[in-house]
This record gives sequence, C-alpha cells and structure tokens, in this order.
Amino acid sequence: MPNGYCGKILHVDLTEGKTSVDEPGELFYRAYGGGPGIGLYYLLHGLPTGTDPLGPENILVFAAGLLTGSTAPSVPRYTVCAKSPLTGALGKSEAGGWWGPELKMAGFDAVIFRGKATKPVYLWVHNGNAEIRDASEIWGKDTGETASTLKSELGDDRIRVAAIGQAGEHLVRFANIVNELVHFNGRNGLGAVMGSKNLKAIAVRGTGRVNVANQESLTELSRWVAQAAAEHPLSKVLHIQGTPVIIGANDAIGGLPTHHWSKGSFESANEIGGDKLTEEFLQGRGTCFACPIRCKRVIKASGNVDPSFGGPEYETLAALGSNCDVGDLQTLCKANEMCNRFGMDTISAGAAISFGMQCTEAGIIGPEVTDGKALKFGDGAAVLEWINKIAHRDGFGDVLAEGTLRAAKSLGLDAERFLVQVKGQEAPMHDPRVKVGVGLQYALSPIGADHWFAQHDPLFTPGNPIGEAAGQPMGILQGVAVGDLTGEKVRMVFYTSLLNSLFDGLGVCFFGFAPRSVTPLNKMVSMVQAITGWETSLWELMKIGERINNMARVFNARQGFSSKDDVLPDKFFGPLQSGPNKGKVTIHKEEFEQAILLYYEMAGWIDGEPSNGKLSELGLGWLRK
Amino acid sequence: MPNGYCGKILHVDLTEGKTSVDEPGELFYRAYGGGPGIGLYYLLHGLPTGTDPLGPENILVFAAGLLTGSTAPSVPRYTVCAKSPLTGALGKSEAGGWWGPELKMAGFDAVIFRGKATKPVYLWVHNGNAEIRDASEIWGKDTGETASTLKSELGDDRIRVAAIGQAGEHLVRFANIVNELVHFNGRNGLGAVMGSKNLKAIAVRGTGRVNVANQESLTELSRWVAQAAAEHPLSKVLHIQGTPVIIGANDAIGGLPTHHWSKGSFESANEIGGDKLTEEFLQGRGTCFACPIRCKRVIKASGNVDPSFGGPEYETLAALGSNCDVGDLQTLCKANEMCNRFGMDTISAGAAISFGMQCTEAGIIGPEVTDGKALKFGDGAAVLEWINKIAHRDGFGDVLAEGTLRAAKSLGLDAERFLVQVKGQEAPMHDPRVKVGVGLQYALSPIGADHWFAQHDPLFTPGNPIGEAAGQPMGILQGVAVGDLTGEKVRMVFYTSLLNSLFDGLGVCFFGFAPRSVTPLNKMVSMVQAITGWETSLWELMKIGERINNMARVFNARQGFSSKDDVLPDKFFGPLQSGPNKGKVTIHKEEFEQAILLYYEMAGWIDGEPSNGKLSELGLGWLRK
Repeated sequence: MPNGYCGKILHVDLTEGKTSVDEPGELFYRAYGGGPGIGLYYLLHGLPTGTDPLGPENILVFAAGLLTGSTAPSVPRYTVCAKSPLTGALGKSEAGGWWGPELKMAGFDAVIFRGKATKPVYLWVHNGNAEIRDASEIWGKDTGETASTLKSELGDDRIRVAAIGQAGEHLVRFANIVNELVHFNGRNGLGAVMGSKNLKAIAVRGTGRVNVANQESLTELSRWVAQAAAEHPLSKVLHIQGTPVIIGANDAIGGLPTHHWSKGSFESANEIGGDKLTEEFLQGRGTCFACPIRCKRVIKASGNVDPSFGGPEYETLAALGSNCDVGDLQTLCKANEMCNRFGMDTISAGAAISFGMQCTEAGIIGPEVTDGKALKFGDGAAVLEWINKIAHRDGFGDVLAEGTLRAAKSLGLDAERFLVQVKGQEAPMHDPRVKVGVGLQYALSPIGADHWFAQHDPLFTPGNPIGEAAGQPMGILQGVAVGDLTGEKVRMVFYTSLLNSLFDGLGVCFFGFAPRSVTPLNKMVSMVQAITGWETSLWELMKIGERINNMARVFNARQGFSSKDDVLPDKFFGPLQSGPNKGKVTIHKEEFEQAILLYYEMAGWIDGEPSNGKLSELGLGWLRK
Repeated sequence: MPNGYCGKILHVDLTEGKTSVDEPGELFYRAYGGGPGIGLYYLLHGLPTGTDPLGPENILVFAAGLLTGSTAPSVPRYTVCAKSPLTGALGKSEAGGWWGPELKMAGFDAVIFRGKATKPVYLWVHNGNAEIRDASEIWGKDTGETASTLKSELGDDRIRVAAIGQAGEHLVRFANIVNELVHFNGRNGLGAVMGSKNLKAIAVRGTGRVNVANQESLTELSRWVAQAAAEHPLSKVLHIQGTPVIIGANDAIGGLPTHHWSKGSFESANEIGGDKLTEEFLQGRGTCFACPIRCKRVIKASGNVDPSFGGPEYETLAALGSNCDVGDLQTLCKANEMCNRFGMDTISAGAAISFGMQCTEAGIIGPEVTDGKALKFGDGAAVLEWINKIAHRDGFGDVLAEGTLRAAKSLGLDAERFLVQVKGQEAPMHDPRVKVGVGLQYALSPIGADHWFAQHDPLFTPGNPIGEAAGQPMGILQGVAVGDLTGEKVRMVFYTSLLNSLFDGLGVCFFGFAPRSVTPLNKMVSMVQAITGWETSLWELMKIGERINNMARVFNARQGFSSKDDVLPDKFFGPLQSGPNKGKVTIHKEEFEQAILLYYEMAGWIDGEPSNGKLSELGLGWLRK
C-alpha cells in the first residue's frame, strides 16, 4: 500500500460505457505528482492534434493532488484537465473543497473520461468501485439540485458531488464544474466539456484513508501549521474578511478593474468590499477539507439570495461588480448565487457582460442586438438578467456564452479593440499595469490569462518580511528589488510559476503554502516526506512543477500555439486611468517582449518551445521531437 | 558576527606591498557560497581578457568553503583560482587538510593576490592581521623545508603553510600548491602563478572559531555522520585502503590507463594497488580537519622514501605507475614523495613522462632530444629522473614542464596524435571509454580534463543502492538506466556537475557527501541550516553550484574559449585495447557531440555560452552581454 497516493487511476469510456483501472507505479507519482501532472501525462498520451474540445475525442481528467486527502492542513485540491473549449489550448482548473479528498478515500487518484455517453449519465465512485448511471432525472437541474438529488438517490448524505449546471449542459464556453455548491473548477470552460460528453456529475464516497508514512511527524507539522494559521497576518485576514478584502487593497493602488478595465478605482469600492460583506452579510466562515484558515464566506439569507451557494469571492465582486460599475453588494451576492447555481465562471461571465456594456456604450451594439434588453454599465438588474441569458444561451446571451473573443469577432473589428483576454480567456481581476509580474504570467500561462499562475508581486518587494522569508528557500528575494520588468522580476515570475505548478501537483492551497504565506516551503517539503516517506527535497519537488509547465507547453505547441500567442491585450500597454499612478504607462511593449524572451531562456525554451535538452533534463525525453 | 563564514576578504597587492580588507555582506555569501564562488566573483570583476597567466595582472584567490572550519565533519576544503598557465582558461583547484579551516579561524574567508612582488615574499596571516614578509631564505627550498622553516621562524608549530616548491618557482605549468606536505591544490598549474608573483607561501594561524547558529543541531548531525562513516561501505574502504583501492577496480573493468592510454589493464596492477600498499607500506591513516573517514595514507620509511610527504593516491599510482608501465610500488612511493616535495601535480607529471615514453617508442624522439637519458616505458628509475628534470626545467625536462600540449607542438604533428588532454590539461586516470559520463565531463569541465567534475558513473546504475539513495533528493536515479549517452546520462552528468560545484562552494569533501556516499544530501542541507542559520534548501543551494558553473563558463568565454573547445581527444573514440570490452568502441563521435549539445540545452547555454536569461535567473545579471 503506497503512502500519500492510492496508486490507482480510474478510466471511464463513456462511449462504450466501460471502466477500467491502471496502476502506473511509484516512479510515475514521484515524477508527476498529482493534479495537472497526471492530467497532462494522459492528455499527452492520447489527445490528437486538432481535437474538437467539445467532441468525443477530448479527454477529461479529474486528478487529486499527490497529498490531497492525507489530513495535512490546507491540502484539499484537485485538478480538472482537458483541451479547453474556451481557448483551444490546455484546459486546467483547480478546486478545493471535499471532493478531491473523498476521491482518494474512495481509492483513486484520478478519473479519466474518454468518449461521449449516448444519453445523460453520471459516474458513481465508491470504495474502489465505479458505475456509470443514468442522469436523465437530473439533466437540466442546477448544481444544488443535482447534488441533493444524487445524495438522496444514493442514500448517503456524505457523498461528494462535482457537477455541472445548465451552463455546462448548454456548452457555455466558460461553464465551470461545481463541487458542494461552493467550490469550483472555475476557468477554461471545463464544465462544457462535461456537458459535451453528456456527463452531468461525478459522485464519490470513500471510507478508506490515505496512508501516511510517518503519522507522528505529520501530526507535529499539522500542529505547527494550525498555530501559524492562527497567528499569521495573511491567514488571519483571509479568515476574517476572505478574499473580498482585496477589493479595498486593489482600489487603493489603482488596480481594481472598473468600467471594463477603463479605470483602476471604483467610487463604490467600499460598498462591495470585505468590510461591508463582513459586517452586513456574513453569517459564518466555511472551509475546505482539513484547512485551519477557513477563508470561505457563509452568508445570511437576504432578499432573494439563496445562501447555500456561498458568499462572493474577490474575483466575483470585481468582475460582476466594479468592472460592470455595479456597487450594490446585495445584487452581487445574487449574481454570485446564480453563476454558482448555473455552473458558470464568474470572471468570464462578468467579463462578457462588462464587455457587452462597453460595446453598448461605444454604440457598437444596441437593443436590436441585445434582444431589446438593457446592457449598460451600472445596471445591477441587467447583470442578473444577462447571467441568466448566458447560462441558457438565450438570444444575445448565446453570443456572449461563446466568450468575449468569439463574441467580438462576430461583432466585428470595432468590438475587438475592447478585448481583455489572452489566448481567448478573459483576464482575471488583477491589473498588470500595477502588478507587472502578473502581466508576464497572463501572457505566459498555458491556459490563457490566469491569476493562479500569477503572483501578486507587490508583496515581493524588499522589506516585506512575508515575501522575503518565504522566498528564501527558493533563493530569491534576498533583498533584491522586483519592481520593474528587470531580470529579477522575470526570475521571480519564473520561480513562482514552477512553485505554483508544484502546489497543483501536490494539491496544496496557495493561501496556506505560497511564498509570502503561512507555511514556509521547507515545512511543505517535510510534509511530503512525512506523508510519502520519500527522501525528497525542494529541489526534486520543484522539478514536478517544472515538468508540469513543460508538459503544458508541449500540449499547447501540439495544438498550434506558439510564442506569438504569449501576448498581452493592447490596453495594458496604455496609461492607467485612475489611482495614484493615473496617466502613467507602466508596461512598455518592447521591454515586455524582451522580458518574455528572457523568461523563455530561463525556462529552457527555444522560441517558446521546450528544448530537447530541457525535456531530457526533466525526464520527459518521451516528448522530444 | 555572521555564522559559518567570517565576512572578511583579505586583499594583498604584492606590487605595492599593501593589504586591505573588504566585507561583501551576507547576500554575497548566500549567492556565491565560498571557494570557487568567491574566486570567480573576484576574477570576473578584475581580470582583463588576454591576461598572461604568469604576468602580474593575473589574480590569485585562495578561498575557503562556506562551511569550512565549522567543525562539521568532512568539510575542510578550500579553493585556489586564477587564470591557468596550463590551459589559459579558468584555473581552479581544491585541497583538503587544515589550511582552509585555519584561514577561517584567522578571521578571513579568502585571500586575493594581485600584482607581483619585487623579490620573494610570503604572507603571514594571523588572527585578523596580515603581513607580507621576506622569503629570500626559503626561496629554492622544497615544500617540506619551507613549511618547517616558517613554523620555526614564526615560532609556532601550529601554523599551517600553503607553499610552492621548486616546480612553482620554475613556473612548471603544472606546478601545484602544497599544504602541510600532504594536501594539494593539484591541478591547473596554480603553483606557477604563485611563482610568477614571487609568492613562496602563505602561513596562517588563528585562534578564533567559526560561529555556528545552532550548535546542538550541528552536534547531532556530526554524530550521525561519524556513525555513518563508521558503517558505510564506501567510507570503510576509503579508510582501509584509501583511493589506491581504485587500481584494482579500474583494472577489472579495463579502465586502468596503461602504457599511456594504449591499454586499460596492467599486468602488474596487483603490485601497485590498495592491497599491496596496505599490507607492505602502510603505517597509519591520516586525515583532514574534522573528518572521520581518514582516507589519507601514512606510509613507513622504506628505502630512500621520506614518508613525511604522504602515501600515493590512486591518481598518482596510475599516472606514474600503470600509465608508464611501472609496476614497482617502492618506486612509486618515491615518485610521489618527489612530486610532493617539488610541488608538482602527479597526474600531469605522469602524463608528461608517459607521453614522452610513447614518443620515444614511436621513434619521434631519441637520446639526442632527451639529453641522452632514457625515457622508456617500464623504466622506474627514469620516472624518478624525469620528475627531477621537469621540476628544475633541466634539459628536455624544460619541454615537458610546459605540459603535453605545448611539448607536442614543439615536437611536431607526429607527437600531437598521442595527446590525451582537453583544453591543455592532461586527463586524469579514469578512462571515458568505460565511464562515458566522465568523458562528457572531461570535455565540458571549464578547467580542462578533470576528474573532480566527473562522476564515476558505473556507481549510478540502477540497482546500486548507494547511488540510488543518494540521488533521490535530486530527483535522479529513479530506476533509470544511465549506461549509454542517453538523455538520462547527460542529465546525471549535468545534475552532478551542479552538485560538485556546490560541494566546492561549501568546502565539503566528495568522499563524505557525494551522491553514492556517506552523507545523504538532505543531511548536508541540514548542516548548512545549522551552521548558517539560514532557512535554506537543496533548491537554493544547488543554485550556488549552478552559479559557479555559469561564472566559470563566462570566464572562459572572455578568455577566448568556446564550444569548439568542448571536445575529447581522438583516442577515446577508438576501441578499448584490453579488459572485458576489448576491441569495442564505446563512445561514438556523433553521439557524443549530440550529448554535448543536449548538455548545453540543459544548462541554458546557447552555443555553449550562458544565455542572458540563465544569467538573470541566477542573479548574475551583471555578467549579461
């Protein structure tokens, strides 16, 4: 019996209605970890170039992190991978909650779906068994109804359900996957891949437990982390206010996307931020499996808001709030509920709506296009209406459900100038003009603009003890300024991109483990040692992260992506419109392009593609051309 | 007061007769470690392109390892760096013993010499003070007389002396630096650099001690290492037989250089190996500062051999023994004594003599060239005579004192075909035809053919528990075969080249810490943490090694070296002449060249030169072109 992982991968052929199991062995786990390491391994072994993301040839992987389910604190995460219907590149999205740990307790590290069911189905995984079951009854239901129906049908309240809502069924290109109503594989439209396969949900239940090599050591480390979480300023603020605290922080530096990225501060920021949410809406604090931080928001029922879909995160508040000029928190709680109910990424949904609002403001579209409905900045009711229309592909909602890039193309060149996306994915709510490292990561992330790959670089400036202490084992942040697009800044982005992918591979949460955060990296290494029993090191583990990044890059190259796709939208090369740096251009295009080239050299990529030497160095010789 | 290091670098201007001290600060030590990290930093900041290695512009650095002198077990080493008079490339050579620890206890991490004294001098360093003193009395003396005269002159028997002998004074291009008669900065002719500066010796004495952040942890780790050294098969055999045990091991696999590389096994191997030395010559076992392994040989007085210059190492026995067809151990003990007395690298001395023997055998030279003296394979008396003639540049000895590359050029093309050197340095006594990874390292080492950079790769094959266990934290050796010139083999060479340079930076000894050896790498990391107090990791530390390798590469590029110099002598592409693989060609030129290119890609080098991205990644942006 291995330690940390289960050693079993469940394969589901939806076309044939059959399941099987393979056991790839210890060296596989040691090389690829879990999560996207597993996902990319199988995608690269089976997905043809040019596959239609919404066709039966797409492969859909659910993979727990290597340590997920081990009771180590803040290690609840799993990854979903496929070719993305939003970008055509790698689709990859992580979620916390309880679903990943439950999968491990049910005896599997990952589930891999191929083909397409002839009618709606769901998968029922329980203690080493798997069953493809009819989902006719739940097709059409929202994510909450789906979960409760399955728990009732299978007769166990402790079943964990990952499901799609109406958005996934309607192949909305930014439909997400929801587990337990309040945790999301949010980005890249992976819910639409489930929909395209007629796969409504995966219900899992396990009573096993993940083996731990050295329980005494793990217990001691866990105690240390719990103590640190109770004392550390970052975890404390995440506990008290959750991510909505970032509304105020970003607004203060002129980096709160407002009026579809036209401004960096919002006059009603105070109305939608952490203080207001905490004071007026908060009922309690939710959490993920074995996490002492409890950053999730449990809100009160208020107005017509169903609180069971959780409270809004920062990204939701900014994407559907400030970026749409909507400053009413009650409306945003409802918008959040609707997106979660329908199973739709709040970032891309907000981006689609605010993009529509900007097109309206510019006179590119009017009521004749928008089904006679309002689509104007500041109109909260319109936001709610358009969420509904997008999820159901109703009227112009059908156009927006394609994502902003496809919508703009259908509206013509005049609309394209408003796009704020990379590789087809809408940018999350961190403005690269005030966080230039984030801009590099938007351009370089294999999954399109993404704030998970991105570090929030102001925290890494010299003198910030959080960032400095945490970065030390990686050999960065030794008093080196990381302000502009210098080599040091690129290095910081490069190193943290390796580290973030390692987090995904292990299943650990950024909030508990990141540089600048609660748990020093060396404690994380000790945790891996305690759980797996491996004589390992940060050196070896960082190679898991690097392997993931290089496999992602090879995946994208095979699907036609190249260095020409590592770009930022023009808007970010323009001046800031508000905040302390108003009028200032902070990212210069030529400098930015040089920084991208520098990153390639750091990564061992020739014109953006992994060199044969880099692949061999990583033990990925099987991907050499 | 810092931990681990002293924080002070002593600068000596021999031309002006002045000394000064700088204190580069903690981040300097954290980035560069010690040893070659310090050496290269100062060479790259002051040495002009095209500098004459034997001119006053050359810079000569003596630098202790970061941890040297800390009482950590098996951490006694220091480095000497300069531009090499043998290769014209980086000159770099490590030594053990007590001199490095004593320098630290005297308050300095390094001593840097510039310029040239007008008359012979030595440097006297004691407890934070430094004094340039007259050496007229000891100029012309051998290394033993020099040490004893200085101890007597300065009135302290505990003074440690690093000195040159007659070879260094006569600018023999492979003259070495000897400390305490039995420890050597052996290769690259750095003794000649001392000679060229009229610098006879450096005497050091300190009563301070190196600060340790966590003595309790260090004590516990030290106890662990001592126990491991007592039990581990590698350290046990090194203790019992010393490096001469390798004679038998290499002979068995057809890899014992014999008859100037014409054969791989020697009929008299048993007469010059570890068994014979142990049984008939051994009196005791010597050691370095705080090392439990005690791999040094103390031999009995026998015949005319003065035992105070120590017993012969493997390299000496092969270079002056099997490779000259000399199978008499008494003669080899004398040859060893003479080289050490005169201060001359036994490898290059043996290579020069065996090369001369081969030229004689081929009829290229005869008595008219060799001063009427014999220079024939198998003639032990001739070996002793030619050691004497080389050290004093007597007659044809003057030609051989230039090293084989220059000697061959002066003898014409017919002699050049016998050369076994890279970048002008003669190959040490490991045949790449039976250890192909060593061949890669011969070609790639910045200091010319060198067996320190090289790993003895048969030990890394799957199933060897020593290699596998030790390699795990580096993420290699996970059951992957490393036999041929595959990507895995190149990776092994690449990773271990980083690691070996890290060892040099820390001052730790390969025999105590290497992959496949006594101390697991994670214990080494713990030791760095205990001594320095840094929250560090193998990840951060390996970057020290990588920094050193990249700085060395930049140094060589500035001095005119390029990818065209990363080659092997033709001989190694030919068939083996004896042993189990007799007649077999094991290194194919095209495959080898591909492997070199693969290494460049792994290292982030474009056509063999560090890319700007790699330099920035390592915090070496100051070396960008």
